Amino acid sequence: MVMMQNIDPSEKILLSHGSGGKATQELIKNVIASIFNNPYLDELEDSSVLPLESIVNQHVNIPGHLVMTQDSYVVKPLFFPGGDIGKLSVCGTVNDLATAGAIPLALSVGLIIEEGFELETLEKILRSMKQTADSVGVSLITGDTKVVERGHGDGIYISTAGVGFVSKDVRLGKGLVKDGDLILINGPIGDHEACIMSARGDYSIGVDISSDCAPLSELVQAIIREVSDVRWMRDPTRGGVAAVLQELVDDSEFDALIDEESLPVRESTANLCEILGIDPIFMANEGKMIFVVSPGSAEKCISIMNRFEVGKGARIIGKIAKGKGRLIMETAYGTSRIVTLPSGSQLPRIC
Amino acid sequence: MVMMQNIDPSEKILLSHGSGGKATQELIKNVIASIFNNPYLDELEDSSVLPLESIVNQHVNIPGHLVMTQDSYVVKPLFFPGGDIGKLSVCGTVNDLATAGAIPLALSVGLIIEEGFELETLEKILRSMKQTADSVGVSLITGDTKVVERGHGDGIYISTAGVGFVSKDVRLGKGLVKDGDLILINGPIGDHEACIMSARGDYSIGVDISSDCAPLSELVQAIIREVSDVRWMRDPTRGGVAAVLQELVDDSEFDALIDEESLPVRESTANLCEILGIDPIFMANEGKMIFVVSPGSAEKCISIMNRFEVGKGARIIGKIAKGKGRLIMETAYGTSRIVTLPSGSQLPRIC
Repeated sequence: MVMMQNIDPSEKILLSHGSGGKATQELIKNVIASIFNNPYLDELEDSSVLPLESIVNQHVNIPGHLVMTQDSYVVKPLFFPGGDIGKLSVCGTVNDLATAGAIPLALSVGLIIEEGFELETLEKILRSMKQTADSVGVSLITGDTKVVERGHGDGIYISTAGVGFVSKDVRLGKGLVKDGDLILINGPIGDHEACIMSARGDYSIGVDISSDCAPLSELVQAIIREVSDVRWMRDPTRGGVAAVLQELVDDSEFDALIDEESLPVRESTANLCEILGIDPIFMANEGKMIFVVSPGSAEKCISIMNRFEVGKGARIIGKIAKGKGRLIMETAYGTSRIVTLPSGSQLPRIC
Repeated sequence: MVMMQNIDPSEKILLSHGSGGKATQELIKNVIASIFNNPYLDELEDSSVLPLESIVNQHVNIPGHLVMTQDSYVVKPLFFPGGDIGKLSVCGTVNDLATAGAIPLALSVGLIIEEGFELETLEKILRSMKQTADSVGVSLITGDTKVVERGHGDGIYISTAGVGFVSKDVRLGKGLVKDGDLILINGPIGDHEACIMSARGDYSIGVDISSDCAPLSELVQAIIREVSDVRWMRDPTRGGVAAVLQELVDDSEFDALIDEESLPVRESTANLCEILGIDPIFMANEGKMIFVVSPGSAEKCISIMNRFEVGKGARIIGKIAKGKGRLIMETAYGTSRIVTLPSGSQLPRIC
């Protein structure tokens, strides 16, 4: 039995909000479903139905695949310049679908909320999820809510799963990468992690950095639609550009050569990195995609990306060459060095 | 920067296991993918692909729908008689799909692990997930891992999403329920919550109760396949049989009449309930399904359920009658009383 006197249920999340009883039903009906607001959720069932024919028909009889993904978000702080845990939890999952070349069909969400969490804050986070999902035309169609005791759970954790559809014509994979292919990115790197570092206030450095947190499905779909020889793509989140490129060339007969001069880094992020002695290539991004494309398509990709707000800073940052599975940074001085991944985390709880 | 000396990485989960770097890759490759062991996961991408044609073809051109669901699991303790958080996280999600009449196609999993959690315990939980998923022929195809600081997160939280397929011929819904329909359940109620109460040791009562935690997709599929007039079904988890039946009749012109005598309750669970003054009708189950069926099909449903280990205790427990949206308990003494849901939780963190 849990007694919860002295807490106004209209303002704080209580354990009973996660118990499956009346309080849970009210929270779901009056807050969650009312904010997410879509016909799937109105049913308030434990699952939601997506009509399969409409998925197939909508894609004009293109045969294809379903893609499924899930990510949990434990970012600290919950709100930061450029975003919040809600926006992040939709962007991250949508971008994982985009990485597979898929358009998002539906999202589901698991909320793990700490007892005593402010309802107003929860609503703000849910509205942010809704707004981000709307911006890419996807709905949050099902989910559940659990409440854990005060002192656990850091306010809120969000786990977001997504289902997407990818046409059979989309072929992407490490195996397609060739000697001479170019490596592209849609804008400056490191902003998300630099922003979280700065927002967390562990460093008394007065920097003004916004997270790059943004959904990329439209930019990615445009590239896939208009360019036939995209070989591989990946969103450089935790571990940064270095981690995904290292993973690309691992156990392969190629090296990934990065031109340090071409790597786009905002001044404020560069300054923070310099003070802390961190290379922005290791820092997490939440609105970036790395593409490996044939040399002949690189300029076209850049101009497609430039059509989108999230692709204004698009650049060629390096190339693929015959090699030994190494990530190599070519510096402005004409020298080069092998980049090795740090084994631990630079900053925990960044997403 | 996080320093974690004095912790043996081979035995405990570190923050770096959630950072996206080498440690994360090793954990995923050597522990998670190695235990979940399926071709989807071997790709180690951020998402997994399900071939859409094979889904459609596998179901012999039956037109149908995709069903999506997600639930998070924060149960305390993590291990209890009859199950653990891993088994629970697969059963709960599979049963939510079953409730929609769907067979499970794929599961994804978000792990939120506390720094310092024992790797051996994690492996035990993951193996339990794998075993439960295998028992219903579904794979854990994608997911991610986050690590939160020591003192947060209670060891481990698991959020499991699922995608299922339901034939268009399956029609279920509140709207189909008719006066005179019978209410069925596949076995004794309240065991999961009674087991968690007892395992948590808050009450010094020496009871021996196992959770009923079990996947129900096979039992449910058999009923759907062989009985044409199943009106509605629902798994009575948090809030128990009372909560789901109340939800069924809410705002309807029906009452749900429960025959107290017919309600199957194990002796040990009944004893615990009596001592604590709780009605087992409010207690959570994790391996039960309530069916509302036409009177003519009830006996057939019981005999189908009896074919399964999880349906040996199947019973008719009540009926639907014209009324005012009330849940009414008819006692052995010929009297009846209106059941009202408790507004808070009897026990938090039961699933």
